[in-house]
Amino acid sequence: MQQISERFIEDLALGATVLGTGGGGDPYIGKLMAQAAAAMYGPADLVSVDDLADDALIVPSAMMGAPTVMTEKIPGGEEVIAAFSALQDYLGREITHTMSIEAGGLNSTIPLVVASRLGLPLVDADMMGRAFPELQMCTPTMWGISATPMAIADEKGNTTILKTVDNHWTERLARSICVDMGTTAMIALYVIDGKTLKESCIPGTMTLAAEIGGIIRAARTAHLDPIDAVLERIGGFRLFSGKVVDVQRRTESGFARGEARFAGVDADAGTTLRIRFQNEHLIATRDDTVLATVPDLITVFDADSGEPITTEELRYGFRVVVAGVPCNERWRTPSGLDLVGPRYFGYDLDFVPVEQRVADRLRGS
Amino acid sequence: MQQISERFIEDLALGATVLGTGGGGDPYIGKLMAQAAAAMYGPADLVSVDDLADDALIVPSAMMGAPTVMTEKIPGGEEVIAAFSALQDYLGREITHTMSIEAGGLNSTIPLVVASRLGLPLVDADMMGRAFPELQMCTPTMWGISATPMAIADEKGNTTILKTVDNHWTERLARSICVDMGTTAMIALYVIDGKTLKESCIPGTMTLAAEIGGIIRAARTAHLDPIDAVLERIGGFRLFSGKVVDVQRRTESGFARGEARFAGVDADAGTTLRIRFQNEHLIATRDDTVLATVPDLITVFDADSGEPITTEELRYGFRVVVAGVPCNERWRTPSGLDLVGPRYFGYDLDFVPVEQRVADRLRGS
Repeated sequence: MQQISERFIEDLALGATVLGTGGGGDPYIGKLMAQAAAAMYGPADLVSVDDLADDALIVPSAMMGAPTVMTEKIPGGEEVIAAFSALQDYLGREITHTMSIEAGGLNSTIPLVVASRLGLPLVDADMMGRAFPELQMCTPTMWGISATPMAIADEKGNTTILKTVDNHWTERLARSICVDMGTTAMIALYVIDGKTLKESCIPGTMTLAAEIGGIIRAARTAHLDPIDAVLERIGGFRLFSGKVVDVQRRTESGFARGEARFAGVDADAGTTLRIRFQNEHLIATRDDTVLATVPDLITVFDADSGEPITTEELRYGFRVVVAGVPCNERWRTPSGLDLVGPRYFGYDLDFVPVEQRVADRLRGS
Repeated sequence: MQQISERFIEDLALGATVLGTGGGGDPYIGKLMAQAAAAMYGPADLVSVDDLADDALIVPSAMMGAPTVMTEKIPGGEEVIAAFSALQDYLGREITHTMSIEAGGLNSTIPLVVASRLGLPLVDADMMGRAFPELQMCTPTMWGISATPMAIADEKGNTTILKTVDNHWTERLARSICVDMGTTAMIALYVIDGKTLKESCIPGTMTLAAEIGGIIRAARTAHLDPIDAVLERIGGFRLFSGKVVDVQRRTESGFARGEARFAGVDADAGTTLRIRFQNEHLIATRDDTVLATVPDLITVFDADSGEPITTEELRYGFRVVVAGVPCNERWRTPSGLDLVGPRYFGYDLDFVPVEQRVADRLRGS
């Protein structure tokens, strides 16, 4: 058990945005919310998965909706407590821990608000190892674990408890409610015990994210290239260097959907990169060549500062480096690809690991 | 306390459709469901409001959605039990009675399924004295009584519990869920105690509906005009005689919306009646003259049989009598008209009582 410091929160928000692959929410807001909660209610404790009792009762807490909306409708902190408390009341059992459902600037820090406020430790794990746009896209779904009972709450005071026949129905009903609530809402879901968490979740995501954030910070201080340092740590590949020439973004059906185009510079001069996204980056294509697809991570970094950039922050003229990072191996299984492969998102593409795509291009095939 | 007979159910389904003013669901399906439940689980008991203990805990059960869909997606009976039981579990208190939320062919008989199956008495009352399309349009809303906690269930096994800040939010969130569930769903809501029910609900609706059904049946047997007999009992007025020439119906946003046009016959020859509806009939206009508006009842009867016709059953060529019936006086108050007056439904019209509109026309003003 480790007390979470202000520095840890700062590094976590930054590093989780790298893993958030364009989504996962705004790290600046996430950092401020978690730091404010720590200042008011005391810092939270971080518990490693190995130290978790089998009968611990863990409930992740998160924001759902379109990050494009969240930049204007900033969460207040009470909504996530309302969702968490509504689920606690419904369960009628004491929840012992909270955790992050996904890695992301906001969704890795929101659970710290719950942890500080309610005095619950945070588990060092998540359910994606990155961010994904839909609720069923969590590793426990592959273990047959229900996302429900799930609570959804808004800032007005409305709460909903869902019990669904499968996790796709959870997503469908929750998305409609989320849209009605203003296209962002706070949620608590995937009630899980310690034993099941150890089997079905991704351990160490919080400390990995904080380590990534720390690497960016340290590299900047040392005047080293933070992007190289990060990619070395997480086994990622530079895919493209360029500048943003167009971003088409629409908020529809509770998501931020669209695509961004980048004109190549340096070695990529004369080529165009296109990234399509649904909250998170899904597919990166240079001219006619697919460079990377879900579930591998596609991360856009500011070329100078090494800061990861979320889709809602992308602006015309930004100089960027686009990187591809292998996803957690669980997503590369047949059941993983059923949930989050390119075909689920409507693209007529087989999944090919990003490292293989890179090797194929280097071999000129 | 009175045991509900097969004949009572038949009369109830028929008479409640008169009060259903075009909506409230299909009486044939409603009758069969209630009779089947009575045959399998025993007949239910009917309790008058006067005999209700102040600390009784009553929960109405109903269908919500578009009646146009219900004619193809017939409810099975399990869904309403699922909704009712989910709310019972959430409350953690024993529900002692069920009741009808509105008068309608299906929504006055669905509670009998719950009553028979769970062995709970049915209260002889409802919350509208007619049918209305939206959940907040219940007399308890005027008493500040919350529609939530509310349960919604579908035939697949999904259930949702809502807690909302007001009854308009209940409608908004529940409607989206209902649409996702296939545009019909079963609900349990407006948890109310006996004392509050006595103050805020409309007593006697079940026996009134059964009486109306009995009047139609008796008049037919005696070769008398059933429409005259019914209108005499409920103080209604013949507004128009004609035949259906056009029905425009669309299922949108969880409702059956549209309008029907009728060509006049007999004294109304040469004129056209237009009825606009949202599940229920809202406005009846003959040429340029408004004949009746919500919250007064506009009921379409088959001219020969005296059977009330719901909007989803209206067909080209039907010979009909259209009648207007004064609504319960609670709806004619300022707070009632805020909830269910013509302006709420988007019509730029003041509410004028149907009896006054009739008198004005007779005076030639």
